[in-house]
Amino acid sequence: MTMKPVAIIAGAGLLPELLANECRRLGRVYVVVQFQGIDLDWAGGHHTEVAEFERLDSLFDRLISAGCTAVVFAGAMARPRVDVTWLDASSTRLLTAINSGDDTTLRAAADLFESHGILVEAAQDTLPDLLIEAGVLGQISPTVEDLDDIARAAEIASALGRVDVGQAAVVAQGICLGVESIQGTDALLRFVMETAVAFRPNPIAAKGVLFKAPKSIQDRRFDLPAIGPDTVKAAAKAGLAGIALAAGQAMILDRAATVAAADQTGLFIYGHVAKVS
Amino acid sequence: MTMKPVAIIAGAGLLPELLANECRRLGRVYVVVQFQGIDLDWAGGHHTEVAEFERLDSLFDRLISAGCTAVVFAGAMARPRVDVTWLDASSTRLLTAINSGDDTTLRAAADLFESHGILVEAAQDTLPDLLIEAGVLGQISPTVEDLDDIARAAEIASALGRVDVGQAAVVAQGICLGVESIQGTDALLRFVMETAVAFRPNPIAAKGVLFKAPKSIQDRRFDLPAIGPDTVKAAAKAGLAGIALAAGQAMILDRAATVAAADQTGLFIYGHVAKVS
Repeated sequence: MTMKPVAIIAGAGLLPELLANECRRLGRVYVVVQFQGIDLDWAGGHHTEVAEFERLDSLFDRLISAGCTAVVFAGAMARPRVDVTWLDASSTRLLTAINSGDDTTLRAAADLFESHGILVEAAQDTLPDLLIEAGVLGQISPTVEDLDDIARAAEIASALGRVDVGQAAVVAQGICLGVESIQGTDALLRFVMETAVAFRPNPIAAKGVLFKAPKSIQDRRFDLPAIGPDTVKAAAKAGLAGIALAAGQAMILDRAATVAAADQTGLFIYGHVAKVS
Repeated sequence: MTMKPVAIIAGAGLLPELLANECRRLGRVYVVVQFQGIDLDWAGGHHTEVAEFERLDSLFDRLISAGCTAVVFAGAMARPRVDVTWLDASSTRLLTAINSGDDTTLRAAADLFESHGILVEAAQDTLPDLLIEAGVLGQISPTVEDLDDIARAAEIASALGRVDVGQAAVVAQGICLGVESIQGTDALLRFVMETAVAFRPNPIAAKGVLFKAPKSIQDRRFDLPAIGPDTVKAAAKAGLAGIALAAGQAMILDRAATVAAADQTGLFIYGHVAKVS
């Protein structure tokens, strides 16, 4: 792990706070970059720079003055509504990419930082313990039927990833009950909760699994799939038996609370290793 | 088209009624097979045989006595809750397949009929006018941006079909807003209506399209994708610009009412021909 001063571009969710706390614990110099309109209720005790999507040149100037030579993108950020009457040069470059899909936008953002000498670092390099290992976490193990559902969901997620749709799928008894699109995992689990009861053919057989893996086309520096305690609670509400993640390629945020939530609700958490065929 | 006496296995939706009316118009001998628990409010004026999932041998005997040598599967049928204490030989064969996924179940049902000398006929062979032709129906045409969304949705639906997930996808401005799983198109459109507002990056640009095509692995005798007037109304509620279907491979039920609904709500209906690359 490098110890260069790092800017944390903070979106929603637990990840930016975890990164800031870890930098503080390690004594690494960091600054939390908060974009206008993004609410960070945890950021009070941290060094924060407020930034605007229309004035990225100004952000780069400030980061370089502060000696920041690394940046981490952390947490979900909705596509901004940008005031196009008021854009500096860097912002114009980013805006051009924003209408071209998620991956393209993130790559353009990365290129922009790197063209200013600020290197993009992956969250999992700053916090390697976030990555899930292979096998069972917590007290509950998947059944043989659950493992079949995991393998089927992994096959579906892989097909989805190749066409850049989402990172997750829900499968019960071999049947796909939902697939992640731009709305994210919470919306997928709500959809399953509201619609899936009649579609588990055998009411006493496997209840189903949420599986998450990165898209095959994905730049691994951004947006690795992640779960936290709230994901476990939502999966329990959706009637699932557990959650599986691609081992070594997905993150568990707040591991203690996440595993505790799984144990309390009777769900398994499983690091899945794809079989090589 | 053959004119053999035909049994119409009637599920939900408009298709079985259309088939029965068409047989009557053509003077073709037919019988509507109504399974217990399936409500057919339109079937009053038609010759109907009531059947039970547990007693398929009895159904075959009656169909053969009636001289039926063809069968059409029409309309959605939920997986039945079967009373396993009470199964004849044919029902036992079908039940074994029921837990193996949609396509497997339908193929097993087809094999069962054909082993009794009753040939499975596709709805589009009985009613070829149901298939959508290439190009625009009705008064509204897709824009260039809509055609881009159609091409992207077709790519996604194709990837989904290869892993046997669904027949439909919704795309707006290049971004996937939803994908069909076992719950069907109505549930997909409801999901888009409830969740997608914030995810169309440009609020004044393309509103998005519903695209449907058969799964590549699909037996074309069953369950070709279809739309009717209600699909158009649901797509309008979901804020979409129109509906595209794989030309020659999907059905429009009640074409006059469907096109009228599209014209009234300002949506296009489009028969899409995939580009050969």
